Amino acid sequence: MEFVRNCWYVAGWGSEFTRELTAITVLGENVVLYRTSDGALCALQDRCPHKLLPLSKGRLIGDDIQCGYHGMTFGCDGKCVRVPGQDNLPEKATVRAYPVCERHGIAWIWMGEPERAVEDDIFHMTEFTDPAWAPHFGDALYLRSNYLNVAENLCDPAHVSFVHPTTLGNPESEDVPIHAERDGTTVITSRWIRNAPPVGVFKAIADFKGNVDRWHYYYLYSPSIAAIDFGSADVDADLADDDRSQGVRIFALHFLTPVDDTNTIDRWMHIRNFSLDDDEIGGRMNEQFRIAFAEDKDILEAIQEEENKCPDHRPVRIAIDKGANMYRRIVSDMVEQERQELQC
Amino acid sequence: MEFVRNCWYVAGWGSEFTRELTAITVLGENVVLYRTSDGALCALQDRCPHKLLPLSKGRLIGDDIQCGYHGMTFGCDGKCVRVPGQDNLPEKATVRAYPVCERHGIAWIWMGEPERAVEDDIFHMTEFTDPAWAPHFGDALYLRSNYLNVAENLCDPAHVSFVHPTTLGNPESEDVPIHAERDGTTVITSRWIRNAPPVGVFKAIADFKGNVDRWHYYYLYSPSIAAIDFGSADVDADLADDDRSQGVRIFALHFLTPVDDTNTIDRWMHIRNFSLDDDEIGGRMNEQFRIAFAEDKDILEAIQEEENKCPDHRPVRIAIDKGANMYRRIVSDMVEQERQELQC
Amino acid sequence: MEFVRNCWYVAGWGSEFTRELTAITVLGENVVLYRTSDGALCALQDRCPHKLLPLSKGRLIGDDIQCGYHGMTFGCDGKCVRVPGQDNLPEKATVRAYPVCERHGIAWIWMGEPERAVEDDIFHMTEFTDPAWAPHFGDALYLRSNYLNVAENLCDPAHVSFVHPTTLGNPESEDVPIHAERDGTTVITSRWIRNAPPVGVFKAIADFKGNVDRWHYYYLYSPSIAAIDFGSADVDADLADDDRSQGVRIFALHFLTPVDDTNTIDRWMHIRNFSLDDDEIGGRMNEQFRIAFAEDKDILEAIQEEENKCPDHRPVRIAIDKGANMYRRIVSDMVEQERQELQC
Repeated sequence: MEFVRNCWYVAGWGSEFTRELTAITVLGENVVLYRTSDGALCALQDRCPHKLLPLSKGRLIGDDIQCGYHGMTFGCDGKCVRVPGQDNLPEKATVRAYPVCERHGIAWIWMGEPERAVEDDIFHMTEFTDPAWAPHFGDALYLRSNYLNVAENLCDPAHVSFVHPTTLGNPESEDVPIHAERDGTTVITSRWIRNAPPVGVFKAIADFKGNVDRWHYYYLYSPSIAAIDFGSADVDADLADDDRSQGVRIFALHFLTPVDDTNTIDRWMHIRNFSLDDDEIGGRMNEQFRIAFAEDKDILEAIQEEENKCPDHRPVRIAIDKGANMYRRIVSDMVEQERQELQC
Repeated sequence: MEFVRNCWYVAGWGSEFTRELTAITVLGENVVLYRTSDGALCALQDRCPHKLLPLSKGRLIGDDIQCGYHGMTFGCDGKCVRVPGQDNLPEKATVRAYPVCERHGIAWIWMGEPERAVEDDIFHMTEFTDPAWAPHFGDALYLRSNYLNVAENLCDPAHVSFVHPTTLGNPESEDVPIHAERDGTTVITSRWIRNAPPVGVFKAIADFKGNVDRWHYYYLYSPSIAAIDFGSADVDADLADDDRSQGVRIFALHFLTPVDDTNTIDRWMHIRNFSLDDDEIGGRMNEQFRIAFAEDKDILEAIQEEENKCPDHRPVRIAIDKGANMYRRIVSDMVEQERQELQC
Repeated sequence: MEFVRNCWYVAGWGSEFTRELTAITVLGENVVLYRTSDGALCALQDRCPHKLLPLSKGRLIGDDIQCGYHGMTFGCDGKCVRVPGQDNLPEKATVRAYPVCERHGIAWIWMGEPERAVEDDIFHMTEFTDPAWAPHFGDALYLRSNYLNVAENLCDPAHVSFVHPTTLGNPESEDVPIHAERDGTTVITSRWIRNAPPVGVFKAIADFKGNVDRWHYYYLYSPSIAAIDFGSADVDADLADDDRSQGVRIFALHFLTPVDDTNTIDRWMHIRNFSLDDDEIGGRMNEQFRIAFAEDKDILEAIQEEENKCPDHRPVRIAIDKGANMYRRIVSDMVEQERQELQC
């Protein structure tokens, strides 16, 4: 599998990184992250060029990282600053330094050409900074699945009726058609389920009297971030298809980090516009999400196992796949474009 | 490894299958089995053609099976009967349906060309239905070994002297020659051990006064079923070589299901002509068999490990291998014949 | 990886072998060892030529080994002495017999051409038999690492400053240059650390008043044995560089057994010239060694994992690698020479 390289991936929540050395794997590359004494993030290739020992097995000397085998030491820019036992520093004794940045409490890493890393390109939603909305962090979910299948699941309103019948969906939505459109490299899939009982996640936090209108708008930002606008309002509100301003509403965010060909981390959180200061409500919602995402994990890992067995399988396509097919084509084009640019 | 496909394999004891979805693997293919509302067996390819999710992760809707991801639903004939969110059913949306049949309390499956499945070809012994004989079911023994080695062990009277010294054999038989003959695709290996102490399995159930004559007749029905006629009578009975009518006598049956190249299930049971209604006697015999077959498992799995290390090894052949060599040739011919028929 | 075959490897401490059958793996070959009734060692290929069962799953009949499957039996010379059920012995029914020898309480095995095995070539130090010195056996340390990396670590005085800061090294030695020289197929690396605090292993057993002069002389006998002359004396002793006669002194011995391409056993022991009869002192030193060698294991296994990921990696070379580079060239030449001799 080839990956899109020139984009910002999530390395972790900002809170995961300290003065301790933390080893992660992104796009199959081992990276060691730590904070310098002024709190800035530093990300280096996690492999000493001398004997290949992961640098994460060494230790910090000030803001430099010292290999745990023979003490070869590197600065945050990846350049060697010391080789014990000799005065000269070998020209090739460098490790790759990755651009990193912290935004909205999230640590971002750029796996592509460093000179193309622009911090303003980092994923942003106005709701992150809008005082009418409150973010609530969730978990890092490890999936033994390639990230494309995980992402497909995030532009797929149809599966909630079958995979998440107690939390995010219910049988009333089984046959409701899905609208899919493309906006640049973003895929938007959506549907309204009208006049149906509320689903589990909203029953857990709101006190609906009867049936509701429910909307699902999945914004999948290629290659690896999804924001799912998900809400319900009493049927009496009689909402138009373009009105998501009433009732309860959340954005469920998913930041996918492709670990390697068959492993992905899905870091998820939500942003809501109600009970802003009530952490207990956020916790109750996360409990619902944990149930739902464990169901996704079960499905996605089973699919990965089958794909490993029959890599040449050509799937049957059905109507609900429209968004997923758009997404696959976008990623394929992004990878191809990077390939061609590298050849120039 | 190629398998013989046009034959009935054991999918399980009949009691293993209910209205629950049960996943099994036969000849490397994943199959889901369940009973319809009228109790009939249904066996389908265990992989949704849409996103590859095993159908066994879904659920029954009446007698149809619904995929747990997007609800695509299939009937017992493997044809798609529903695709949620659309009215038309894609032509390719089918899964393979396997002929299945229940006989003698055993569930049989046909992995080859469905039009060649004839239920009368299912393995049968008159003793199954003869009131003078009583069947007693045993276990499903999982072996990390290819089925050819397991089957060889079932036309091999010689190994009991060394592998099963406390149950099925004893040192008196070490050097007794073995007779091997071929009858169509069946291999029959046999020997009489005359005037020797009784072996463990018979000591556990019969009260012999002194030495016995013991017979072993191994009927190996290629490619995967063995019936071992095994008995002992007091030496005073002075039995002729063709007389197995006296003393205690059992048929130990082994039904091999090749799971894949290196895994096999051996479902075993026995039929006996004494103490027909005494379940306790059957249980005591099974205890002896469990000891013996665990010894076989240990040997056969060790051999598989060695074969994996040196796949090109050419074994030394000795006199006792005659039956095994016949069996290997029969299976090789059966596989080759199926290959040629497919090319026509 | 190719191995040097024509040399004596350590099969185990002599105490590891009894009348029980013991299975070991050396250079990727499975070997079964046992003692004959007169106490002599016998080493045979651990695989019956009939059905490949490891002979170690069989049992001894006198001084012969009987296969646990069909009773084929072999003498210490690897020749078949019995095939149950037949009188003739097939010509090919032999297993390889390995020259073995016991010296200094250690069992040695020769994996190369048997006619070239000369017992006088077994590793020897006069200190083994000198009454002024006492040996003290240690453990068998299993490392998931190829033996070349383990051996490199045994001609590498530099790593102790970083890997073993509490036991064998300390920061004072970080930048002290290393001398490396070659003597035939032996690599000798050494350095003196002058006027520094004593290291942990010596503090545990000696009562130094202040700083010491410390020497490390690593004798690496290619391909797989190291003797590390390691000692300290009070700075007042004012030792010359060629004087290691004072203070405390030990030889730490490492006998590497390459199990296969990525696994090695390091059997270690020490010989000391003080407190000869005090087992408690030896035990206390071994505790220090266990801490230190667990640190090596951690490093060497991490390196092996990285090498598996990038087998074509070309490491950066630095000054301290001189001894390791000599060693790699010697082993490479030894392997090449054996290859050429086999072609003649």
